[in-house]
Amino acid sequence: MGAALALGERARGRTAPNPNVGCVIVRDNHVVGRGWTQPGGRPHAEAMALAQAGEAARGATAYTTLEPCAHESARGPACTDSLIACRVAHVVIALRDPDPRTDGRGIARLREAGIAVTTDIRSADAARSMAGFLTRRAHGRPAVTLKLATSLDGCIALADGTSRWITGLRARAHAHLERARHEAILVGRGTLDADAPRLDVRLAGLEDRTPRRILLSASDAPGWTRIASARAIADLDGVDHLLVEGGAHTAAAFLRADLVDRLLLYRAPILLGGRPGLADLGLATLDPAHGRWNLHDARMLGSDRIEVYERARG
Amino acid sequence: MGAALALGERARGRTAPNPNVGCVIVRDNHVVGRGWTQPGGRPHAEAMALAQAGEAARGATAYTTLEPCAHESARGPACTDSLIACRVAHVVIALRDPDPRTDGRGIARLREAGIAVTTDIRSADAARSMAGFLTRRAHGRPAVTLKLATSLDGCIALADGTSRWITGLRARAHAHLERARHEAILVGRGTLDADAPRLDVRLAGLEDRTPRRILLSASDAPGWTRIASARAIADLDGVDHLLVEGGAHTAAAFLRADLVDRLLLYRAPILLGGRPGLADLGLATLDPAHGRWNLHDARMLGSDRIEVYERARG
Repeated sequence: MGAALALGERARGRTAPNPNVGCVIVRDNHVVGRGWTQPGGRPHAEAMALAQAGEAARGATAYTTLEPCAHESARGPACTDSLIACRVAHVVIALRDPDPRTDGRGIARLREAGIAVTTDIRSADAARSMAGFLTRRAHGRPAVTLKLATSLDGCIALADGTSRWITGLRARAHAHLERARHEAILVGRGTLDADAPRLDVRLAGLEDRTPRRILLSASDAPGWTRIASARAIADLDGVDHLLVEGGAHTAAAFLRADLVDRLLLYRAPILLGGRPGLADLGLATLDPAHGRWNLHDARMLGSDRIEVYERARG
Repeated sequence: MGAALALGERARGRTAPNPNVGCVIVRDNHVVGRGWTQPGGRPHAEAMALAQAGEAARGATAYTTLEPCAHESARGPACTDSLIACRVAHVVIALRDPDPRTDGRGIARLREAGIAVTTDIRSADAARSMAGFLTRRAHGRPAVTLKLATSLDGCIALADGTSRWITGLRARAHAHLERARHEAILVGRGTLDADAPRLDVRLAGLEDRTPRRILLSASDAPGWTRIASARAIADLDGVDHLLVEGGAHTAAAFLRADLVDRLLLYRAPILLGGRPGLADLGLATLDPAHGRWNLHDARMLGSDRIEVYERARG
């Protein structure tokens, strides 16, 4: 399932409104097929893995990060039917599909066909990997990651606006990889006017993964998709993962609207005493600030540190 | 030597202008004496450990964090002479004493008396432990630790000044233990007026370790020792370790004057968008901000994280 999750990650940010699924087919301890949702959503991961496995799929075990779809479409047969037709013996599923056209029906049909089904294997990791799809299903909006690259004292620039560079090469490369995993990046008007950011993916081989550029502003700018308020992200078609990159007022607008699901904090071992990364959140007391963020991951990137926080559930 | 360093730590913040030394005497694989510099500087660690060892010191190995003193004083004999008189067989020393009255003469006299001497064992840790003494010797001022307790976005309070509490119980207890290891704590006028901080050590058994309270201000306040500029810390008698606790302008004043040796950063997993922990450092470019701080230690304290940075050497 770890391999299937890794394959699903390849598709993150390219499959909206479909989930980014990964699938691995194993027979006699050999991997005979690997698949992940293709750009635009088709073929599905299972279809790709089954095509690769061919005859070897018979009697094999398929590991898939999401319950196979149970609905036929004009773009192809249901993966449930394909798995049955290929006579797979066992299907291991990380997460049940909340899509009402499937939602347990895929599992039921596999079992009716005599295929063993195991569920809830690494379901939390699968939910994290397919956060965009699940957030769109549950809340009708993209999953939002807020990125901040700061000094130890939380600044994103000197007092005069100078911000290149706070973090080092490795942290910036990591940030570009994160860009490639989002359908869209958003900045505010102040950042556009001050930095004219390219927001592209400057990583060899991933240049074509540059996301759509969204502007939060009261007025249009050529070449940008504009929205007038943070809540309007719900209307962005084809965007299930949104990366908010700045600046301080834009970040605060998303936090105030409680629209941030994940914090991506890059932190350089420097002190600036400059411009804070966040504008006023409008908190009247400290109590509501606590308990909202859980540390999920942290590591060093050169002399910088990255921390990933997730919204606390319930 | 690890045990000797731990004993020396007990004395940190109570021995100025003397160093906080630790000493362990071992004979036949048994600890027969333990000592650390007593409050006010006497007895010395070696004298205390030798008194405890008594006859057992003969033929033993003495581990001491600083070269034994070679100068007699009205307050007692030189530790070098005491070690010779007790017929210790081997002296293991972390760090040579920069005091011109000793500075290698202790080591030489021990060797002349036929005692084996090993030097430079964990000398970096010893230098860290006796930072106050060494900084006073080298730079004529106390070693300065700057403490900041912030949110993830570097704030020390909400916009209205509310700051209780940002960090949790464990982080605050740790901060109180740090207070006990400094001869004095300093705050600025704004912090005094806004918070009227007690700056005491609220830890059971350590209440008497509450440091002197210093105020950085243009005008006096009853009960406080006042200095008018950061550089005036050089004139604080009996203060070899100074903890700067805030606020943003005081912290910036010490950083601008390049007087901070150690950063003690407590960080709670919350976002505030409030008052930044540091006022303007007056940097014209980002270059001079880089390379100044090395991460020395980090750990979790409940859901908060503490990071200790040290001034990068040369």
